[in-house]
Order: sequence, then C-alpha cells, then structure tokens
Amino acid sequence: MQESSNQFNLSDYLAQSTRVVDRALDSFLPGPRIKPSTIHKAMRYSIFAGGKRMRPALCLAAAEACGGSPELALHAACALECVHTYSLIHDDLPSMDDDDLRRGRPTSHKVFGEAVAILSGDALLTLAFEILAQSSPTRRYSVSDAIQELARASGSIGMIAGQVADMEAEGSQQISVKQLQYIHASKTAALLSCSLRLGAMSANATPARLQALSEFGRHVGLAFQVVDDILDVTQSSDRLGKTAGKDQAAAKATYPALMGLSRSRRQAARLTQKAFDAIKPFGAKAKALHAMADFLLHRDY
Amino acid sequence: MQESSNQFNLSDYLAQSTRVVDRALDSFLPGPRIKPSTIHKAMRYSIFAGGKRMRPALCLAAAEACGGSPELALHAACALECVHTYSLIHDDLPSMDDDDLRRGRPTSHKVFGEAVAILSGDALLTLAFEILAQSSPTRRYSVSDAIQELARASGSIGMIAGQVADMEAEGSQQISVKQLQYIHASKTAALLSCSLRLGAMSANATPARLQALSEFGRHVGLAFQVVDDILDVTQSSDRLGKTAGKDQAAAKATYPALMGLSRSRRQAARLTQKAFDAIKPFGAKAKALHAMADFLLHRDY
Repeated sequence: MQESSNQFNLSDYLAQSTRVVDRALDSFLPGPRIKPSTIHKAMRYSIFAGGKRMRPALCLAAAEACGGSPELALHAACALECVHTYSLIHDDLPSMDDDDLRRGRPTSHKVFGEAVAILSGDALLTLAFEILAQSSPTRRYSVSDAIQELARASGSIGMIAGQVADMEAEGSQQISVKQLQYIHASKTAALLSCSLRLGAMSANATPARLQALSEFGRHVGLAFQVVDDILDVTQSSDRLGKTAGKDQAAAKATYPALMGLSRSRRQAARLTQKAFDAIKPFGAKAKALHAMADFLLHRDY
Repeated sequence: MQESSNQFNLSDYLAQSTRVVDRALDSFLPGPRIKPSTIHKAMRYSIFAGGKRMRPALCLAAAEACGGSPELALHAACALECVHTYSLIHDDLPSMDDDDLRRGRPTSHKVFGEAVAILSGDALLTLAFEILAQSSPTRRYSVSDAIQELARASGSIGMIAGQVADMEAEGSQQISVKQLQYIHASKTAALLSCSLRLGAMSANATPARLQALSEFGRHVGLAFQVVDDILDVTQSSDRLGKTAGKDQAAAKATYPALMGLSRSRRQAARLTQKAFDAIKPFGAKAKALHAMADFLLHRDY
C-alpha cells in the first residue's frame, strides 16, 4: 500500500477537490450583498478562510472508494465544512478558547464582534442542514438518514460533548488517557467518521463498507488530534496559523502532557496504521484515503 | 367567529397540547445524566423553563385544521420549540441582549456560564434537525421539504436576519416602519409562519391551505411582536418574567417608540384581523387557531 500512496499525487487531488467544494460552497452560501449583509459577510469570511477542506475531501474520497460519484457527495461535503467552520467560530470565542488568530487571520469575533460571530456560527450550522436536505437519497439511505448522521455526530453526544468535556478537563492534571480519548473521539473523530459515512452513503455503500469507512474515520480522527496536540508543542504560531502553545498555557489535557512527545508520536502512528488496516479491503480504490491518512500523520502544520 | 372563539376553552386546549409536547420533548432530549451531564442539564434547564409552547401549539392546531392528526405533527412541534429555545439562550447572552432574567428565572449563561450556554443553544439547534428528520413524510411533502422549511425560517435570511437587523437598528432613531416590519417579519414571524406550515405539511395539506396558514402565521407573528413591544413599555418585569423597559433603555426600535402606544395597539388589532381573515375558509376546524390569535392580541404578559 505504501507504494500506491507514494505514486498518488495527493496535492493535486486535494487542490482539485478544494476547487470543486469551494465552488459549491460559494453557490450554497447567500451572497455577501444579500440582506443583512453583515451576517453573510461574516459567514463567508470564515468559510473562505483557507481551510484545508479535510472533511469534504474525506467525504468525496469515501464516495469514490465505494464506486460512487463525487458529484453526489457534494452536498454532504459542503454541509460538513459548514458544521466544522461553525464549530471553529464558536470555539474561538472569548468565553471558550479565546483565540485571536485562526488560519493566520483574525478570528471572526475580532473582525465582526462577538454577537455577529455567534450568529454567523448559528447560521452556518443551520445552513448545513438546509444543504444536506437538498441531497439525493440512494436505495439504501434516505436523506433523513444522512441528516440524523450529521446531527448525532455534531450534537450533544458528538462534537459538542467533546468541547464540553475538553473545557471541563482544563486545568485538571488528573485526567486519564481513557478520558482524553473520549474527548478526542467526541470532539474530532465523530465528525471525521461522519464525513466518511456520508460519502459512503451517497454512494449507496453496503453496510460492511460503511462500517469499514467509519472505523477508518474514527482512527484517522484520533490520530489527527494526537498530531494536533504534538504540533501545538513543537511548532510556531506562524507555521500553524493559530496561536501555538495554547494548550500548555491553559494546562489543557493533551497527549504530550500525559505521555510525552515520543510516546505520543508512536500513538499517532499506531492509530494511522489501524486506519490503513480498516480500508485494506478497498484496495486501490482507497488510494486517496490512504494518502490522506498518511499526510495527516506526517504534516507539520 | 367571535362566539366560536369564546365557546372554545383555550386554556384547556393549551394545557393539553403542552402536556403532549413536554412529554415528547422529554423523550427526545438526552437524559440529564447522559455524559457530559453539564450540557444535557443546560439544555433541559432552558427547554423546561415554563415556556408558553406557542409554536408547538400552533403547529399541532394547524395539523388539526387540515384534518391531520396532532400525533404526526409532534416531531415538527418539538423541533420548533428546540429552535425557539436555542434562539432565546443566544439572544440573552452578554454580547447580545445581555439579559439576566427569562421566564422569571436566571438566564442560561447566569447559571451555567457563557460557554455552556452557547454550546447548549448549539446542541438544541442541532437536535431540532435530528428530531425533524425522524418525522414521517406525506404524499405531498418529504422530510427534506420540512427540514428545508425549518432551516430557511430560522437561518440567515429568516430568524437570524431579524436578530442581526435588530442589533444594527439599536440606538438608531431614524429607522422606518418598513424597516421595523422587516425586523419583526424575520425575527418572529418567519418561525411562527413555519410552525403553521410544518403542521399543515404533516397533514398533507393542499397548497392553497398551506398558503392560507402561512399568511395566518405571518400576521400573527407580526401582531405578536407589536404586542411584545407594547408590553415591554406597559408591564412590570415581575409580570413578564423578563426584564421590562429593556427596549427603551437600549433605545431599541419598537412600535411604541415609532408611533406611540395607541396607534401600536390599533396596528396589533389590524394584523390580528388579517390573521382571522386568512383562516376563514377553514371554518370551525380552525377554532383553536382563532382562539390563539385572539389570546396573543389580548395577553398582558
């Protein structure tokens, strides 16, 4: 598998997927002059802030891996990016992580004020469901199935649970690896796994394939968060495009804090290997997914 | 029509509808001990804060008016209440209306802190779509249709537009009646009208009936907001269960500020009459709706 991932041109693949997704997002979001323009400017400011479009790319690649067309996964891909972006806007607020910098630019509340930032997050979350509701059902999966998947992954027992648990763990040195895994599984892996699932569902995947891609997503999500923790310690704010060293400053529970850097790196590699294992049955059809997992493990920003 | 509305026992009707809706909400919301319990306690604190359940009642009554069963409108009714409650939690935040009191109790951020209040609003909005996605389609209307209705009414060109425009108008004495109507139409009437529409859709209403109930909802929504503005001036905080006189203190654009109290009262009555006219074709089947519009006009809290 390693060869196939080396032969695969990931940066071309991601650039192409980002182009397609950005065009679709531009068509789904109300124009910046639509009244009230403040809110639509704020929504667009955060959506078009140079995000890596990782969730849409995973969603489209999952559809391909199941023999489907990326076109049919495009609504889900855009809905996922809207949910992800809303979560960043709200996480950055002064009452949450209080971050001034995101992707190298001032955060939404720094530019538009707290009230509009909160509302633009609300609006993106709402839009996510409007977009997804416009997708096409398949023989096995209804639009309602897709909506429920997205709502569960991003709701109070998914992504929001992770954010709450993360805040509650702050400053606590006593947190266990198990508790940290729960935070990561909820805060990041749930929506990443959902990205894979929605892509697979748009391609009418068999239950077995849907399950395999869920596993892949969960492991990639956990690995992603371990690497994120590592980068917060090892990289500069410039490189990350967000404030580095924040976790340490806030005495946040992280893998490096719990088990040190080298054990954290081994843990990320182990999780990535589990992700590779999950998609073995897909063979060459999963080469984009394989390359993405590999890239996320070795990234330095 | 006036007699039928007098004969109709509205308080019994509302009490019964509230019982049914509260039982359903209790079953849809994760239990207070489900992890992380903070978020589920916060969601329940706001949902079970003694709200009037006006939107659910209108939704169920619209279903009945179209010959449908309230049972089939119950998912929509609960989804509407989740959206309404999330909007109150976020509107009350310090960066928005900065309100300490809601329905006679401390607001969510006063009890749980700002971060959890924001997240519990996010979670209720997300849950609204999860609940609605579990409703049943009819011959004329799919579940996707219902989801899109709710998303549009509550999104950046619906309820959120109203909140943004309301904030932007604050302190401006130059606002026109037309602009104020736009604020009310977006902030309140859009979701009220949606409540009627979702109820009608659950009963497989004809397009003509759906249209009539939309009109009814829009007029009731506009009248409701005019009365709300009047009560802010004329009633005590105790009576309202929220801080009275806030609009004036914040130099908010309101009907009484723009045209005085007596012209505002006539305006509310005129809008209510338009609402009555819209549902005339339904005859006795709309007696609950008629009584509710009448009640909203004459309420003093």
